[in-house]
Parts: sequence; structure tokens; C-alpha cells
Amino acid sequence: MDAVQREEGEAKERREEKVIDTSLKDLSRKLEEFAKARDWEPYHSPRNLLLAMVGEVGELSEIFQWRGEVPKGLPNWEEADKEHLGEELSDVLLYLIRLSDMCGIDLGEAANKKIVKNAIKYPASKVS
Amino acid sequence: MDAVQREEGEAKERREEKVIDTSLKDLSRKLEEFAKARDWEPYHSPRNLLLAMVGEVGELSEIFQWRGEVPKGLPNWEEADKEHLGEELSDVLLYLIRLSDMCGIDLGEAANKKIVKNAIKYPASKVS
Amino acid sequence: MDAVQREEGEAKERREEKVIDTSLKDLSRKLEEFAKARDWEPYHSPRNLLLAMVGEVGELSEIFQWRGEVPKGLPNWEEADKEHLGEELSDVLLYLIRLSDMCGIDLGEAANKKIVKNAIKYPASKVS
Amino acid sequence: MDAVQREEGEAKERREEKVIDTSLKDLSRKLEEFAKARDWEPYHSPRNLLLAMVGEVGELSEIFQWRGEVPKGLPNWEEADKEHLGEELSDVLLYLIRLSDMCGIDLGEAANKKIVKNAIKYPASKVS
Repeated sequence: MDAVQREEGEAKERREEKVIDTSLKDLSRKLEEFAKARDWEPYHSPRNLLLAMVGEVGELSEIFQWRGEVPKGLPNWEEADKEHLGEELSDVLLYLIRLSDMCGIDLGEAANKKIVKNAIKYPASKVS
Repeated sequence: MDAVQREEGEAKERREEKVIDTSLKDLSRKLEEFAKARDWEPYHSPRNLLLAMVGEVGELSEIFQWRGEVPKGLPNWEEADKEHLGEELSDVLLYLIRLSDMCGIDLGEAANKKIVKNAIKYPASKVS
Repeated sequence: MDAVQREEGEAKERREEKVIDTSLKDLSRKLEEFAKARDWEPYHSPRNLLLAMVGEVGELSEIFQWRGEVPKGLPNWEEADKEHLGEELSDVLLYLIRLSDMCGIDLGEAANKKIVKNAIKYPASKVS
Repeated sequence: MDAVQREEGEAKERREEKVIDTSLKDLSRKLEEFAKARDWEPYHSPRNLLLAMVGEVGELSEIFQWRGEVPKGLPNWEEADKEHLGEELSDVLLYLIRLSDMCGIDLGEAANKKIVKNAIKYPASKVS
């Protein structure tokens, strides 16, 4: 396999991977269309959305509340519980994105900047 | 400009737009590297991350707590307050992504499924 | 009415008022009996109770989430909504008391100390 | 010791115990005076207080976030950490009481009713 073929193969892989990745702006656009199609925009004030997000954080916490410590990867969890967890995590994400949009904040840009800021605040203890 | 040129132009725009978009998996990878380089992985159990996220939701709420209702787009907010808001929104997002990863949940996939489920639960009142 | 009668009358009023007042230790005792009678004590670890409380804060927030600003005293709220609100406020209180107890913290004492500390931190702007 | 003496002794104990107990209405009155003396009443709208409480729940969660599971009674915690915990538990309580007051809800009465309701919902598994 020559260099051109290799490069083409890698580009194809990236394109295919992209299909199953999700961007913040994609979700943002879907949420905007969703709200418009249902005339929900008047309800989407910043503090309404913030409280709605707090409500979802509460539902997420309820999933973990009586379990004691939970190991990574959630071994032994029922498939239905994982499905439920995915839904509550999503609800928090969707209100967070919508809240950011209604505040005029570019969440992806802000998140990337925050990671850089954190890297300065907490220097890596080891060279990778 | 013929059709092929137009299509190529649009594809180029999408590629350029992509540069300033952010995917959930990009952030996920950065957070994993960040934790590894600092030996923080042992602390990233699901309930630790959940409580850390609740802590950030609290800091986000503090920004809004004494303001009464806040109009969309945050007119009249100081630039420093918007900057601070972007950081707290980001902190919630970053812990949410990391929590999802430590639970073995694909957050982007789950969010897309949740939007579809919501669309069935709340049918659009008008044809767009 | 002489001084003794007045004093007796006031003492009686205080006793009667006391009947409808509730102390933190009364609630604490009831919660302990409640948990014991149901064999729930093993579940009442500090972080379980904290997450349960976050869950109730979420349910409380859901009551307020789509209402925009709400005037004091909740004029125009349905009686059933106020009843529901009283229940969610109570759920937060009960988990908060139980969490304090399981941490060995005297919540009433801590709250009184915090008020004194706040009074020093924020001196009154006017003499009452 | 005759019956009258015993009764008087018990009444005296209750009075003395009362000194170190704290009632919800005592705290409520102190918070009202506190807000009045600082002209803070205009800021104490229900949703402002709710968000302030969410902020305090966040600070409480931060105390527990990186500790993994925590045993009852918090053995091995530093005295300063327990002091800090008592303050954050108190902050949640104080905003919860103030929120209830601003909503016109009698929190003590609601809490007692909720315990009765819970007792019906979850019958005791054993006779005490």
C-alpha cells in the first residue's frame, strides 16, 4: 500500500468515524428547530432553562442515590438502567446546550478554552 | 458558477465551519488525556464525577441567583460576567462528558436518540 | 388584668404556639425511627443521602422551571400546586436533616452559628 | 420521688433541652430580621432564593466530591472540614426556610405532614 492509498484510507476512516460522532452545533441546531416547531421559544428564557437543567440533574442523581459506590463501566447494571442513565445524561446535555445558546455563549469554544485554562492551572505531573 | 463548483464551494464551507465546531468525542479524548497526564483517573469514579458536576451546577446557579429574570442574549451583562458564565457552562459540560465516559455511555448517540424520542413524545404543533 | 395574669396568658400563648412549631430535633427523631422501622439504615450513608437530596432539589426546581419570575406568596397558584410545593420543600428538608445526623453534625447549632457568622460578614446597613 | 416531683423534673429537662434545640420558626424569624436590617427583601423572590439554594447544594457537594464513599460519623475527618460541612449544611437549610417563607408555605407543618404521608406509602416492615 503506497502513501497515497494509506492517506486515502485514513481520510475514509475519519469520514466514517465522523458519522457516529456528534458535534455541539449539530445538537444546537436540532434543539432550535425542535423549539421553533413547537412554539416553545417563549419559554426558553435563561433561568427557565437553568431550572429545567437542575431538574434533570436531580433525575440523574436519583439513578445513583441508593447504590453506594459504583465501579467504572457499570458492571452488573441492567441494560434498562443503562438506557435510562443515557437518557438522563442526555437531558442534562440538551438543556445545557440550549441554555448556552439562549445566553449567546458558544459552548464548544468556551469548553476548549476552559481545557487550555485548566491545563495551565493544573500542570501535568508527568510527560506523556 | 456551475453546479459542480457550487457543490465544491459548499463542501469547503462545511469543512471550514467544522474547524470552529466541537464534537463530543474530541472533548472526550482531551479529557481522557488530561486525566491520564495528571494521574487523576483513580478519582474519576462515577459518583465522584457526578458530585463534581453538581458542584459546577451550583457555581452556574450562583451567577444567576440575584438577578431576577434575565433576557435572552444577556444584554447589559459585563464582558467579564459572560466570560465567567462560559467557564461555568463548560465545567458542567466537561464533567458531564467525563461522567458519561466513565459509565460507558456514548453521550452523543444517547443525545440523538433522546431528541428522536422527545419528538415522538411531543409532536410538533405546526408544519415547518 | 394584673401583671401575673398577663404573664400567664403570654406563657400560655407560647405553649400553644409551640404546639404548631417544629424543632429540628423532633424531625430528626422521627426520621431515625422511620429508618429503623423499615431497616433503611444501611442505605443512609452520607453520599447516598446527599444524592437523594439533590434528587429532591431537582423535583423542587421542576415546579418553578417554566413559570418565569414568581411573585412572593405565590398569588394565583392552584392549591394543589402549593401542596405539591410543600411536599418537595419538605423532602429537601428531611434528607438534609438526615444527612446532617449521619455526618454527626448538629444542624440547629450549626445554623445558629452560621447566622451569627453571616451577621459579622454582612453588617446591617441600618439600625432596626 | 413522687409523681408530681417526677413530672416537674421531666418538664425541667424538656425546658433545658429546648435551649439547645432549634425550631424552624426561630430560624425563620431570625432570617426575616436579617433580611430587613440589610434591605435584602427585594432580592428574596422565590426563584432567586431557589437558585441561591442550588448554589449552596453545589458547595455542599464539593465537600464530598473526591472522597469516594464516606462512612457515617465521618471518622478521620479534620475538625476544620467538619466545621466547613456544618456551614454548608446550614446554608442550604437557611435558604430553604427563607424560600418556604417567601412562598407562604409553613415548612414545619408541611414536613410533619410529609412524614405521615411517607409512613402510609412505605409501611414499616417490622413492629418496633
